[in-house]
Amino acid sequence: MAGSTFGELFRVTNFGESHGPAIGCVIDGCPPGMALSEADIQRDLDRRRPGTSRHVTQRNEADRVEILSGLYEGLTTGTPIALLIRNTDQRSGDYGNLLDTFRPGHADYSYWQKYGLRDPRGGGRASARLTAPTVAAGAVAKKWLAQQYGTRFVGWMTQVGELAIRFEDEAQIAHNPFFAANASQIAELEAYMDALRKAGDSCGARLSVVARGMPVGLGEPLYDKFDADIAKAMMGINAVKGVEIGAGFGCVTQKGSQHGDELTPQGFRSNHAGGVLGGISSGQDLVVAIAIKPTSSIRLPRQSIDRDGRPTVVQTFGRHDPCVGIRATPIAEALLALVVMDHALRHRAQCGDVAAPLPPIAASDRGSAPAP
Amino acid sequence: MAGSTFGELFRVTNFGESHGPAIGCVIDGCPPGMALSEADIQRDLDRRRPGTSRHVTQRNEADRVEILSGLYEGLTTGTPIALLIRNTDQRSGDYGNLLDTFRPGHADYSYWQKYGLRDPRGGGRASARLTAPTVAAGAVAKKWLAQQYGTRFVGWMTQVGELAIRFEDEAQIAHNPFFAANASQIAELEAYMDALRKAGDSCGARLSVVARGMPVGLGEPLYDKFDADIAKAMMGINAVKGVEIGAGFGCVTQKGSQHGDELTPQGFRSNHAGGVLGGISSGQDLVVAIAIKPTSSIRLPRQSIDRDGRPTVVQTFGRHDPCVGIRATPIAEALLALVVMDHALRHRAQCGDVAAPLPPIAASDRGSAPAP
Amino acid sequence: MAGSTFGELFRVTNFGESHGPAIGCVIDGCPPGMALSEADIQRDLDRRRPGTSRHVTQRNEADRVEILSGLYEGLTTGTPIALLIRNTDQRSGDYGNLLDTFRPGHADYSYWQKYGLRDPRGGGRASARLTAPTVAAGAVAKKWLAQQYGTRFVGWMTQVGELAIRFEDEAQIAHNPFFAANASQIAELEAYMDALRKAGDSCGARLSVVARGMPVGLGEPLYDKFDADIAKAMMGINAVKGVEIGAGFGCVTQKGSQHGDELTPQGFRSNHAGGVLGGISSGQDLVVAIAIKPTSSIRLPRQSIDRDGRPTVVQTFGRHDPCVGIRATPIAEALLALVVMDHALRHRAQCGDVAAPLPPIAASDRGSAPAP
Amino acid sequence: MAGSTFGELFRVTNFGESHGPAIGCVIDGCPPGMALSEADIQRDLDRRRPGTSRHVTQRNEADRVEILSGLYEGLTTGTPIALLIRNTDQRSGDYGNLLDTFRPGHADYSYWQKYGLRDPRGGGRASARLTAPTVAAGAVAKKWLAQQYGTRFVGWMTQVGELAIRFEDEAQIAHNPFFAANASQIAELEAYMDALRKAGDSCGARLSVVARGMPVGLGEPLYDKFDADIAKAMMGINAVKGVEIGAGFGCVTQKGSQHGDELTPQGFRSNHAGGVLGGISSGQDLVVAIAIKPTSSIRLPRQSIDRDGRPTVVQTFGRHDPCVGIRATPIAEALLALVVMDHALRHRAQCGDVAAPLPPIAASDRGSAPAP
Repeated sequence: MAGSTFGELFRVTNFGESHGPAIGCVIDGCPPGMALSEADIQRDLDRRRPGTSRHVTQRNEADRVEILSGLYEGLTTGTPIALLIRNTDQRSGDYGNLLDTFRPGHADYSYWQKYGLRDPRGGGRASARLTAPTVAAGAVAKKWLAQQYGTRFVGWMTQVGELAIRFEDEAQIAHNPFFAANASQIAELEAYMDALRKAGDSCGARLSVVARGMPVGLGEPLYDKFDADIAKAMMGINAVKGVEIGAGFGCVTQKGSQHGDELTPQGFRSNHAGGVLGGISSGQDLVVAIAIKPTSSIRLPRQSIDRDGRPTVVQTFGRHDPCVGIRATPIAEALLALVVMDHALRHRAQCGDVAAPLPPIAASDRGSAPAP
Repeated sequence: MAGSTFGELFRVTNFGESHGPAIGCVIDGCPPGMALSEADIQRDLDRRRPGTSRHVTQRNEADRVEILSGLYEGLTTGTPIALLIRNTDQRSGDYGNLLDTFRPGHADYSYWQKYGLRDPRGGGRASARLTAPTVAAGAVAKKWLAQQYGTRFVGWMTQVGELAIRFEDEAQIAHNPFFAANASQIAELEAYMDALRKAGDSCGARLSVVARGMPVGLGEPLYDKFDADIAKAMMGINAVKGVEIGAGFGCVTQKGSQHGDELTPQGFRSNHAGGVLGGISSGQDLVVAIAIKPTSSIRLPRQSIDRDGRPTVVQTFGRHDPCVGIRATPIAEALLALVVMDHALRHRAQCGDVAAPLPPIAASDRGSAPAP
Repeated sequence: MAGSTFGELFRVTNFGESHGPAIGCVIDGCPPGMALSEADIQRDLDRRRPGTSRHVTQRNEADRVEILSGLYEGLTTGTPIALLIRNTDQRSGDYGNLLDTFRPGHADYSYWQKYGLRDPRGGGRASARLTAPTVAAGAVAKKWLAQQYGTRFVGWMTQVGELAIRFEDEAQIAHNPFFAANASQIAELEAYMDALRKAGDSCGARLSVVARGMPVGLGEPLYDKFDADIAKAMMGINAVKGVEIGAGFGCVTQKGSQHGDELTPQGFRSNHAGGVLGGISSGQDLVVAIAIKPTSSIRLPRQSIDRDGRPTVVQTFGRHDPCVGIRATPIAEALLALVVMDHALRHRAQCGDVAAPLPPIAASDRGSAPAP
Repeated sequence: MAGSTFGELFRVTNFGESHGPAIGCVIDGCPPGMALSEADIQRDLDRRRPGTSRHVTQRNEADRVEILSGLYEGLTTGTPIALLIRNTDQRSGDYGNLLDTFRPGHADYSYWQKYGLRDPRGGGRASARLTAPTVAAGAVAKKWLAQQYGTRFVGWMTQVGELAIRFEDEAQIAHNPFFAANASQIAELEAYMDALRKAGDSCGARLSVVARGMPVGLGEPLYDKFDADIAKAMMGINAVKGVEIGAGFGCVTQKGSQHGDELTPQGFRSNHAGGVLGGISSGQDLVVAIAIKPTSSIRLPRQSIDRDGRPTVVQTFGRHDPCVGIRATPIAEALLALVVMDHALRHRAQCGDVAAPLPPIAASDRGSAPAP
């Protein structure tokens, strides 16, 4: 209830602080009998890891995951899977000057007012570092969903600051530090980021995340609709300020005759819905877009107050991502996977013996991403 | 877990179908000792009610609420408050032709695939009619929050189809059928809606909802952040496809030096955050915007399939809102109130004896709505 | 969270007060496609109903249930099933003298201290009348479990005050007002109760409840063990002060070589476990026993205090059960059914594709009730 | 939902297996600002630790706890407190002969049928070793409750096998390996246990646990009554088969005129209720008793089946407690503390601004333990 657990049936309980001894999570509710090893999880952790290019924070964390429980002879047993990641590169000194002030746009002020005290070292609990356990848990969900339904998750950047990123070739996403789906704009992106870093400023970003091979029927109306839980998961990622499903804000200027996706025996003729109808998955691709605000920790001086309420000026010289959006792609994938996983189990609980009256409409004509 | 309960500590359990005997909800967890009567609830129900202008569905429902429990001598006792609304104007005949087909963009298909059967009368459980109990519960939350913190909720339309609606005068919102914050565009809006209805089509909409007089410290990171729960509540409203907090998608092209709201002893100098920092309320106004898709039930013919998977054509001749967004304003207010209420109790549970180290920054300079 | 919801996946939300307009519940999570009607529910309500013999309260309530939602053409749709029971025989006058004092052993004092006020009419929310919606929900669970697994629930009295009741013939339970499994002690029981009523006093009771035809594998260790949830459900029944599973307190003087139920290919050789091993159902009969305290509302004068803390004397002249245990049998059955139902869905969620390695051990030799 | 989390607002998520790398838990929802260190927790862990006398298992575990998160400068921050205990003395070889058979009375069979596989090393997840993280979490709750309300928890054995243990001097409990509240029976107990161990058998036990200095008003009727949650917590302890509150099964033969605790301005005149009225704490001492079955792992040969369903004989030669009840006292205390803690926060959430109308009745005359 204090908010550190994600999901209802596939439950991930997250712990740790940026500069404490360790971070990690406990996954409760994983189906038994699935082969699992650290390697399955490490892959996604490495995609999120800091220090992998000059465009992200230079903090050097191996983010090596240890599985503490829940396996026997390489298979999940159905008992909790505890994952531990030791923090190794905490330079608390970096933050010495921030102990008594509040960075504009940062959680410093609100944490302090809520709890009456705060761990100021590296943002404490509010650090984006705490997305690592989420990514680890997401890797477990991804593996099960791939085996069970053939579901696959992929995300990519669609905009960095003013720079729109063209979707040209999905295969390129893994081959550049920007999760860009092309090879042609990488130089442009590098130049943009270098200038930004030099200026001591930060920028926003936008990205898409998609799930393909979706089962039909996931989602629990009225209040736990599939898209509602996706929106919660996405808005809960550090720095996210907007979420769209399918047509998103574009639907405002659409007509009903244009928005509603027509059905044919061969499949849906478009995917403005983004894979969700009435809060329940339709079997079409899930299509989600999010907006990520610029990093709050910048070198440029900003007005603020100190712990006594007196005016002061804040500058942040620690190691920070100038565009937090860049590393957000594997995080958004992980959260989407966690939502799908949780709802797959919820659906099975109530409707496990329902035979869907019709085979899911064929995927051939689903009007897949990149829609938004 | 089947999704009909909203909230963790102020819990609203919703029941009913569009054309069943009754709809309603049970509110569990309301603090004891608050004066409450049907009149407190009826006011908001009347704002959401169908049949109040020619621009919304002509279904004629009084939406008269009956309180079945939870009160003694006019005060809440702390026990569940059950609210009942009888359905009185169900013309099931309206939907006879839809029993065997699926309206494009509607929940017909996904409900049927999930549960193996569906109640086709008026959309059954997927009907926007089921927002009435939510609005009723929201009215209870609004009353408590107003008394406890002075918090007030207000929503208004900012766009209908291609037509942007200027924010000129908040006092006008209550005086036109469009929840428009001006008197100058009403004629234009009426003409737009008349043309749309005549064409047998529908359109999307966009609206803002704001909470003023917010307490500091609400929200439960990591996963139940305040903005995350707001996003869930908003995306869960029928037909919503996008949610923004504060700057929303506008943050993508902002720099960090521009987005982060500076603090002064007199208050925040702007409100790009929309009232939430690190998933915790900052005391600034909550500022939320949502996108609402065009109604799926339209008179224009659309391609679909029938229950045997064969191609067919669908037209809907029942009584429908050509722009569901219009009646969504009190719904969005209610859901925002429910999120604030639930988090107020959650915060009190864990931090009930925390003295906020600093008085909340004064409201004078909060950079209130209409921001987005 | 305020405690009016039972279950995690098959969720029953209960509302109402003894002397309010109505009582009822909302069942969320019922699997779709099951035939259901008021008659299925009314049967168990009638078994619990007051006024059916001179040995129970003379309040005359028809307890007629109305299904408000969740059905279409006689089948459950998977959406919430709301059940409504109007109160018809409230004589608030009966309690006039109790408004300002607290009956010893009753919830009057604790409710008032918790909430700062209380509904004194007939015990308000603390009345055993609120078990009626639970019984109604239990009837829905029983029907599904009978169809799905062939599970059957039966309870009977084993003791009333000092009078032990012999288990002779299960078929007799339905044919006497005491839920006694024999015909030979009925006269003795009637005489006992008549004397008690005449004395203005009340007595305790003990009963057994059993589930036969249990699936293997229900229960969620570590904390939501099957027996733990059964104990919670039973202790939560009004007036229950003790719960036993299988050998119960008898295990204290057993040796390990005696208690542990040996397994053979033909089945377990005894059932001291009461059907639960390590918090998980073993497929043996569930065997539960509970102790029910004497009714607190008696005619004999008792010392108490009034609302100002001053000493006073309390006597209760309303209509009360001299032995609340008598009507508790269908209540205990209903709660046991709700626990089994909830855990059946929980098990299916996580382990829905597990093939039990061995067929459940045959029932022939299960050492069934009446064990405790 | 898979059952590894205890509590709603003070949530403890438990992980680990008897012979895996580590066990531990994550506590979410602890109020901020409380001084906490490993020493606060180690004390209770040491009381539960194996290997401390010849009467308990000789497994040698230091049970050294490490706090991984949730503290800053020695104070709780309100974020999750992760506790880690490395397993150091796992001799899997001890269990080699049990891989393919099922010990009568043990969870071997039910785990294997539920999950389709099991971790057989030392009982895996079903081992009583997993109570260590619960005890650790209970120590945190105890500290907060002592500071907030002055609540204190104490448990003691009342019976071992056929041997009743007299309550003579509470101060003796800490000075013998049996948690006996006297010094006069220790020799007798030692002789009893030595004979039992020599015989290769095991025995049951009974113990009492009490909370003194209870706040009034805890508990959430209808379904999350205080006594209901206590019963769940107690029955969920490994090997518990029965739970009593206050008079317990003794109430069956009580009259109402005897059972109902009379109130006076000086306090209650007795405590048959055991501190709970109508599911809500009355401010009297909480009085709970539990029955613990004999250990299933014994040296004596027992009939069973193997994984192929064929008959076999089982004997267990590992290191086991001949009376698991002995080490259960600190476990029962911890669980009672967790229930009180969780309900204290739940009560504060809903009723945080209720002023109890009357000061709690004075404790002088509460009729405290040892009642049952």
